[in-house]
Amino acid sequence: MKLNLLSHINSPKDLRLIPEMALPQLAKELRDFIIDIVSVKEGHLGASLGVVELTIALHYVFNTPEDLLVWDVGHQAYGHKILTGRKDIFHTNRQLGGVSGFPKRSESEYDTFGVGHSSTAISATLGMAIASNLKGDFEKNHIAVVGDASIASGMAFEGLNHAGVTDANLLVILNDNAIGIDPSVGALKNYLTAVKSGKNPRQNNMIKSLNFDYSGPIDGHDIFAIIKELKRLKNTKGPKFLHIITTKGKGLEQAEKDQVKYHAPGKFDKLTGEIIPKFEENLPPKFQDVFGLTVLDLAKKNEKIIGITPAMPSGSSLKFMMDAFPERAFDVGIAEQHAVTLSAGMATQGMIVFCNIYSTFLQRAYDQVIHDVALQNLPVIFCLDRAGLVGEDGATHHGVFDIAFLRCIPNMILYSPMNEMDLRNILYTAQLGLNHPIAIRYPRGRGLHQDWIKPYEEIEIGKANLIKKGSKVAVLSNGFIGKNVTLALAEMENVEQFAHYDFPFVKPLDEKLLHLILTEFEHIITLEDGVINGGFGTAILEFSALHQYSPKIKILGIPDEFIEHGTVAQLQRYSEIDAKSLQIIFESY
Amino acid sequence: MKLNLLSHINSPKDLRLIPEMALPQLAKELRDFIIDIVSVKEGHLGASLGVVELTIALHYVFNTPEDLLVWDVGHQAYGHKILTGRKDIFHTNRQLGGVSGFPKRSESEYDTFGVGHSSTAISATLGMAIASNLKGDFEKNHIAVVGDASIASGMAFEGLNHAGVTDANLLVILNDNAIGIDPSVGALKNYLTAVKSGKNPRQNNMIKSLNFDYSGPIDGHDIFAIIKELKRLKNTKGPKFLHIITTKGKGLEQAEKDQVKYHAPGKFDKLTGEIIPKFEENLPPKFQDVFGLTVLDLAKKNEKIIGITPAMPSGSSLKFMMDAFPERAFDVGIAEQHAVTLSAGMATQGMIVFCNIYSTFLQRAYDQVIHDVALQNLPVIFCLDRAGLVGEDGATHHGVFDIAFLRCIPNMILYSPMNEMDLRNILYTAQLGLNHPIAIRYPRGRGLHQDWIKPYEEIEIGKANLIKKGSKVAVLSNGFIGKNVTLALAEMENVEQFAHYDFPFVKPLDEKLLHLILTEFEHIITLEDGVINGGFGTAILEFSALHQYSPKIKILGIPDEFIEHGTVAQLQRYSEIDAKSLQIIFESY
Repeated sequence: MKLNLLSHINSPKDLRLIPEMALPQLAKELRDFIIDIVSVKEGHLGASLGVVELTIALHYVFNTPEDLLVWDVGHQAYGHKILTGRKDIFHTNRQLGGVSGFPKRSESEYDTFGVGHSSTAISATLGMAIASNLKGDFEKNHIAVVGDASIASGMAFEGLNHAGVTDANLLVILNDNAIGIDPSVGALKNYLTAVKSGKNPRQNNMIKSLNFDYSGPIDGHDIFAIIKELKRLKNTKGPKFLHIITTKGKGLEQAEKDQVKYHAPGKFDKLTGEIIPKFEENLPPKFQDVFGLTVLDLAKKNEKIIGITPAMPSGSSLKFMMDAFPERAFDVGIAEQHAVTLSAGMATQGMIVFCNIYSTFLQRAYDQVIHDVALQNLPVIFCLDRAGLVGEDGATHHGVFDIAFLRCIPNMILYSPMNEMDLRNILYTAQLGLNHPIAIRYPRGRGLHQDWIKPYEEIEIGKANLIKKGSKVAVLSNGFIGKNVTLALAEMENVEQFAHYDFPFVKPLDEKLLHLILTEFEHIITLEDGVINGGFGTAILEFSALHQYSPKIKILGIPDEFIEHGTVAQLQRYSEIDAKSLQIIFESY
Repeated sequence: MKLNLLSHINSPKDLRLIPEMALPQLAKELRDFIIDIVSVKEGHLGASLGVVELTIALHYVFNTPEDLLVWDVGHQAYGHKILTGRKDIFHTNRQLGGVSGFPKRSESEYDTFGVGHSSTAISATLGMAIASNLKGDFEKNHIAVVGDASIASGMAFEGLNHAGVTDANLLVILNDNAIGIDPSVGALKNYLTAVKSGKNPRQNNMIKSLNFDYSGPIDGHDIFAIIKELKRLKNTKGPKFLHIITTKGKGLEQAEKDQVKYHAPGKFDKLTGEIIPKFEENLPPKFQDVFGLTVLDLAKKNEKIIGITPAMPSGSSLKFMMDAFPERAFDVGIAEQHAVTLSAGMATQGMIVFCNIYSTFLQRAYDQVIHDVALQNLPVIFCLDRAGLVGEDGATHHGVFDIAFLRCIPNMILYSPMNEMDLRNILYTAQLGLNHPIAIRYPRGRGLHQDWIKPYEEIEIGKANLIKKGSKVAVLSNGFIGKNVTLALAEMENVEQFAHYDFPFVKPLDEKLLHLILTEFEHIITLEDGVINGGFGTAILEFSALHQYSPKIKILGIPDEFIEHGTVAQLQRYSEIDAKSLQIIFESY
């Protein structure tokens, strides 16, 4: 592919030298550049293809980085990164030490606010805009680009509700493509669809009701139309709202057709768009599928079972149940707070609710877990997918705080399955009725067992398991990371000295077994796929101190820093919880 | 006062026997009953006075408890409690062992969902309504009563956005009195005001846009009008929205006039409404005033200082700064998520942001603290009022989880002042620039020092303080609760054995001093006004284990259960962290 225009653009300053009539050609080149790299290096494709014209127009019209531009979520910011000085390193996207998959302040002055979780952009940009007013800079522009899935989240509404009573120089651009990762849902989405289709008055009254200067909807792929409107808005003061209509995956036929699959398609043929199949024969299942298929199976037998996901039907595999039992499985959109309290409400009426939320996103509903579920001791079953280190999504997405923030909540049961069968069995056990809320945390990716579908077995709440006997050092692991202990021990010689226990329950602890371990062993090592501060190992410390034992306890887990992006293996190595690191630590005993 | 009707009502069944024309008389009696008791026993007055007619009408028209009624927040539910079997024990309101100040499932079948924090009712009630549909009960009614301050919170929007695409038999009643605890704010509030005043079309288009059957606004004190409309809505299926206009404090002249003060006025003369002044001479300041007055003072000297509160200008005393510097001090409404990310956005532009949120409400913005502030290491200054046990507000409001849930977040500084001067000085120190976010947690109520305004002194980050030397046992306390150590030691004989250290910083710890303490003392006792699991004491355990010390460490704090309502003194006694309990524990050494 011959780059003519893009090859000369190392910053938006270069972009602004290009005549407006040449911008469609640049859009084509930028689109091709994204496809070229993502087809080989993987990453988020569809969102960035959809905003190529908008991205060019924004940097063309506004004086970035003085004008402040915030991308909500950031999946769509690849074009932005390429145009703002990161073209030549963009092939390192999402790799250890490489470009982050999301805008990030430490990476570029053009990345004015770090993103990853949705619906933060309006609040952050409003903060910047108010600051500019206070500094007397009334000419600066502040732009938040928000998708239609993100804007339906409560936090976005809070930002709009505040912005509407300010004189902040804020421009909110609604990038309306009717899809997040999965298709958007909710009454607001229906309303926006009606606006687009002309069934509502041309003007968006809901947004105008919040005191915004509303314009649109306009075609987000008509770069001249966007530029014209942005130029007008650039000189309009106060809170403004531009509604543009785009197509996710624009410019790659298959990506436009199958927008869910092409959100992050993995490797694909850049010419035909065909996804290159991974060699997937004889692979163990993804944990998300163990969840999705098991809940489907359980739901067939028990009509009180409900499934809830906030906007992750594909990623969580709740999709299986949604297809089979649409009346009992709900995608509530990006609304974690609502998802949890909705679950609580259902639980009061005797429903058995599996509320599936990625670990990192449960942070969004922390108060609801405490105040609406645990305080009332409602038996909601929280299924926390993507717990632990998640790999390439990086610092914003690691699910490493959950043990610490859930362990301090009274009434909660906290369980991490060591393998697929344990996950399957705890799901089975939970729906039998525990009289307590439970959080089941399991990792991103695949397990180890192809033959995971076996007859259900009830799991005894609080029970830990002896994996391997030993004489001197007891290794206590929590969850799937325990496999690294097995791997490490397999490489060692003095292996008879090491006992290995699987402690899937962080709460309640297996106190009987702990008394034995603390009595018998002089050294204890704990291992978890979560932060050390306040986590599983700390629970063992607390127990040991309470009962006045005095063994040497070493806690292994994620250190007290934000872990960046890379493969899970690389990040485990960095955190010294991979098998090789464990072996070195074990051998020092 | 002679009760005629109310004395015969022990449940809504009795209420429904009264002829409709007698209900205004009942409303008067109910209002008088509330005033009678709250004037003597204290509690939340204004909200319940405002919904007397609505409360009667709801229980009159609907078949509670089969029809499910959820009060958002619950400050307004006194009338509900009195009509649903708790008239004779209502005088125990908010006392240890007495009636809770909020609806509570364990207290009555009429309290269908426990509340306290705002904006949960729509989600919870929708969950109930969907459950009823699934159970084939299409006649059951599900009613959420939500204030206009609460409905502007993002979580409420999430609930409406979902409800609008369901066929759930949900009735949302907007109790619009233009005030929460402080006057409501935001664009939605302005919109609703315009609806009320007739400046907008009579129908509320914003709510209709979300696919609700909207009716109103109607006069919430016209009991016949409410009953008529409720009867109509009772037989209307699907999501419905009734907008009623009420006056907070209705029926007590002073309460209507000064709605902020009469939200929870303390004792007052039930005839004149005059608040009975407490004997306040020579009292030390409230911690909230130390915050409010100090920030005001600092803001005078530094124009980069910003103050933010989500709907607590009076309770946090940010009001002082809002009055003096309205352009730099913001009440953003019940929008904790927005408050935190707005602060982060301002901090990126060099503003020095004091973001004041009650500890229990910071749970609502946990993800924003992690993802938007700490991950970007933005120096937002979180001021967490009402940290620790709060007393009469009870289980929903204790700020006891904050140390545990904040300590696991990288980059955070975590500080609890031992007294007013420390709070004043850490506020001063924080605005000098720490290059990290800091959370400053301080309790509800008053300190100990009238003479707290002294020249500012910079506090060394991470530094702990020796309060008293000792030989055998080191007591390490965090924050204001440390006063109980002093009190306990003052009653003891073998006091020379006890050293007392104030560790205001949970993070970073004073490692140098800890090495000394762990080397010198054979026994360590830690004390905090927060949960034991994962808290300050645990941090000491982790440090001790990391460095392979082996003293006996005893952790004192809040046990792993939800603590109910009572006075702070009673609840400290229950948790064994009051001075008397400490003395007994100390004497066992």
